[in-house]
Amino acid sequence: MSKILGVLGGMGPLASAHFMLRLTLLTPAERDQEHIPAVLWSDPRVPDRTAARLGGGEDPLPALLRGIRGLEAAGCGAIAIPCNTAHGWYAAMQAATALPVLHIVEATADELARLGVTEGPIGVMGTAATLAMRLYQQGLEQRGWHCLVPEAAEMEGQVTPGIALVKANRVAEAYAPLAEVARSLVARGARAVVLGCTEIPLGIAAGPALPFPVADSIDALARAAITWARAD
Amino acid sequence: MSKILGVLGGMGPLASAHFMLRLTLLTPAERDQEHIPAVLWSDPRVPDRTAARLGGGEDPLPALLRGIRGLEAAGCGAIAIPCNTAHGWYAAMQAATALPVLHIVEATADELARLGVTEGPIGVMGTAATLAMRLYQQGLEQRGWHCLVPEAAEMEGQVTPGIALVKANRVAEAYAPLAEVARSLVARGARAVVLGCTEIPLGIAAGPALPFPVADSIDALARAAITWARAD
Repeated sequence: MSKILGVLGGMGPLASAHFMLRLTLLTPAERDQEHIPAVLWSDPRVPDRTAARLGGGEDPLPALLRGIRGLEAAGCGAIAIPCNTAHGWYAAMQAATALPVLHIVEATADELARLGVTEGPIGVMGTAATLAMRLYQQGLEQRGWHCLVPEAAEMEGQVTPGIALVKANRVAEAYAPLAEVARSLVARGARAVVLGCTEIPLGIAAGPALPFPVADSIDALARAAITWARAD
Repeated sequence: MSKILGVLGGMGPLASAHFMLRLTLLTPAERDQEHIPAVLWSDPRVPDRTAARLGGGEDPLPALLRGIRGLEAAGCGAIAIPCNTAHGWYAAMQAATALPVLHIVEATADELARLGVTEGPIGVMGTAATLAMRLYQQGLEQRGWHCLVPEAAEMEGQVTPGIALVKANRVAEAYAPLAEVARSLVARGARAVVLGCTEIPLGIAAGPALPFPVADSIDALARAAITWARAD
């Protein structure tokens, strides 16, 4: 086990810590030395991705590239980014490094397939920027799924505040608004719901399990990273 | 917020991921940008610390120093090590770097004081090596506490296997043996129990809360790191 996984995190920091936990728990291992070596670059100072994309806020790309340089210098062999919205800058990041950058949308599409959801409408929850950039709509529609997204009022009243609650460490309070929107997507016909912002699975895990398939983008990225680490 | 915390982890990887989670949850913050920048060097390949100290296994110091060099190169301003047994090499690590290395035993002693346990016998659970090196006995007795440690049969039958279960991702199964030893220490007169191996709090958190004060060395180190990050 000599490949080191680079994790560009801090967006948010709770989500990237949770990613490290899930990476460990999903790795078959009997003792420390069988786990995957990793370096987590947790820089919560990266300018807000949603504000940059939708509100003319500061460009996060320079901070993202600083993190990638740090992970390269640490000897990492691939990069995982447990922040969906940051994948709006995926092409620029991948162009700036020779290391493979795992793509969270592809990983989540693989997760949907793993859950046995091979067709039909898929509900997608994410930040307003992730939805506006159509990261999931493009990624999933290429593979034959059709996407349903929350209504504008649900984004404003539940999804965006739910994500902010997790970033403010108020995880338990995030369950109700996030779960309500997931249920509403299923009521509109979704066969499964993609938790396409890494804060959302934390909120959803804080209450009763939802009675339909959910594709958790944190677990999906962790599985993709384990597959990379275990490949020759 | 420009100080970067270096975390020398992977010993075990679940404990260091949990440390990152607790560091985040214990930090007062409303949004990503108010959290503490950190780099986690999670190297589970570090040779087993207990085997090195008690059984003539490979010396972990070179791997520990490689991690410290990596954290220095990443621009970190202090180092936290969420592994109690690794503190058996504390003096050699601190001598090898100009960065302050936070000491987990001092942090845990501060945690006992914070819990209001200012005197009396304290139960200490840890790896066989941590107890044999007297890391807590020395650290706590200097500050006026008296330490009780598990019997040899409890170490062999419950504490050591409980720690191994957490390292093998079998966290829920670790509760019963670890909680039983904690209760036994209190039955012998301990006023509080120190969870002096970073796997132990994970096992203890997997079941009902214990009805006496426990000083969690992960939370203690996280609080020390937050104090460092927030100081001028």
